[in-house]
Amino acid sequence: MVKKAPRRTAERILGTTLELFNRFGEPSASTTMISAELRISPGNLYYHFPSKDELVNTLFDQYEDRLYKLLEASQDVGDVEDAWFFLHSLFELIWQYRFLYRDLNHLLSRNRRLETHFPTILTRKREALRGLLDNLRAEPPTDIDIDAAAARSRDAVAASMVVVLTYWLSYEYVLHPRSAMEPENAQDALLRGAYHVLGLLAPHLGDAPRAHLLALIDAYAPAP
Amino acid sequence: MVKKAPRRTAERILGTTLELFNRFGEPSASTTMISAELRISPGNLYYHFPSKDELVNTLFDQYEDRLYKLLEASQDVGDVEDAWFFLHSLFELIWQYRFLYRDLNHLLSRNRRLETHFPTILTRKREALRGLLDNLRAEPPTDIDIDAAAARSRDAVAASMVVVLTYWLSYEYVLHPRSAMEPENAQDALLRGAYHVLGLLAPHLGDAPRAHLLALIDAYAPAP
Repeated sequence: MVKKAPRRTAERILGTTLELFNRFGEPSASTTMISAELRISPGNLYYHFPSKDELVNTLFDQYEDRLYKLLEASQDVGDVEDAWFFLHSLFELIWQYRFLYRDLNHLLSRNRRLETHFPTILTRKREALRGLLDNLRAEPPTDIDIDAAAARSRDAVAASMVVVLTYWLSYEYVLHPRSAMEPENAQDALLRGAYHVLGLLAPHLGDAPRAHLLALIDAYAPAP
Repeated sequence: MVKKAPRRTAERILGTTLELFNRFGEPSASTTMISAELRISPGNLYYHFPSKDELVNTLFDQYEDRLYKLLEASQDVGDVEDAWFFLHSLFELIWQYRFLYRDLNHLLSRNRRLETHFPTILTRKREALRGLLDNLRAEPPTDIDIDAAAARSRDAVAASMVVVLTYWLSYEYVLHPRSAMEPENAQDALLRGAYHVLGLLAPHLGDAPRAHLLALIDAYAPAP
């Protein structure tokens, strides 16, 4: 039992840090604020995580790990309902670690691990979405003209989907800086994000899956 | 002649500040760095701009002014060549003031003027792109099925275009943090951005303008 204590403290520290980072942004959340919120001494915090970058890196590792597991699931996406569920899960994971996206460029300019790992994150997201696009288009053949346009723009669509996926929460934050990052807005923000990413997919599907997707989108359409 | 001197100094300060903000990011560019680069005393800088926020706000006002003039031109977009030119101009303007986008969320959390004005900027961009979409779709009628889907997703497409427009440079920065913001990469980055935004437009056009747009996209396709 005695040996478990340090690990429990480290987990508690990480949980509170993630909450404060998400709420106030990493640049505004100091280690002093974190130890005060946890009611532990700065020395105790320092014992577990000798710098704020250690906290950022550990949270980032968690995120990276969970993201790559989730991206593998894109291979099993067989129809538009799977795609909807997959994108929604992706947005949920991004929401849980939204501090990374909220001040991404600032973090990248100061943290070597993020600087070296984030390009791969975006590249793997793009590959997963390209694969998803191919899976869905392997369904019944489609209007020849749409298909020719789709072939040419397949990579471009995947890249645009990554941009919307990556920056949707930032966009919501700009529109509503005082409320967008609060937990009670999560559900609507995630729905709007998934709705827009799926909307980019729709024109590149065959007739039947496109109709199915548009029906899904209508059913789940969030408040604007 | 004597009266002109202060204004010339103020202009010189703004030019150098913009350059340093764009190069290093606003959070990393201090007023000390700015006055050193200009070889003027901190007191002289302070005389013209009593705080760093004054510098940010003045540059932001310039940007806002130029952006709204440019967005008005979206009403004159009659064909896809106009659209290409319009989007390219929009990306050029964003590039010139890229520090605003590089650390947008961080700036918003600390600067009241940006916090209150930026939502309108995104809303007006979205309106301009929606208008542009409508202008282009007023051309020869199109496949009825595409049109029904397009009508449903018109607003969503405009919003996704704004997200790609707003965050394309951030996306490039994540992929290439050490080089993306350097002036020698401007031309390619702007081409890739315009290419992706136009790619989102293509599926929502009638057959003839779509073919025209895809030909344009092919001709100007940048290195990936």
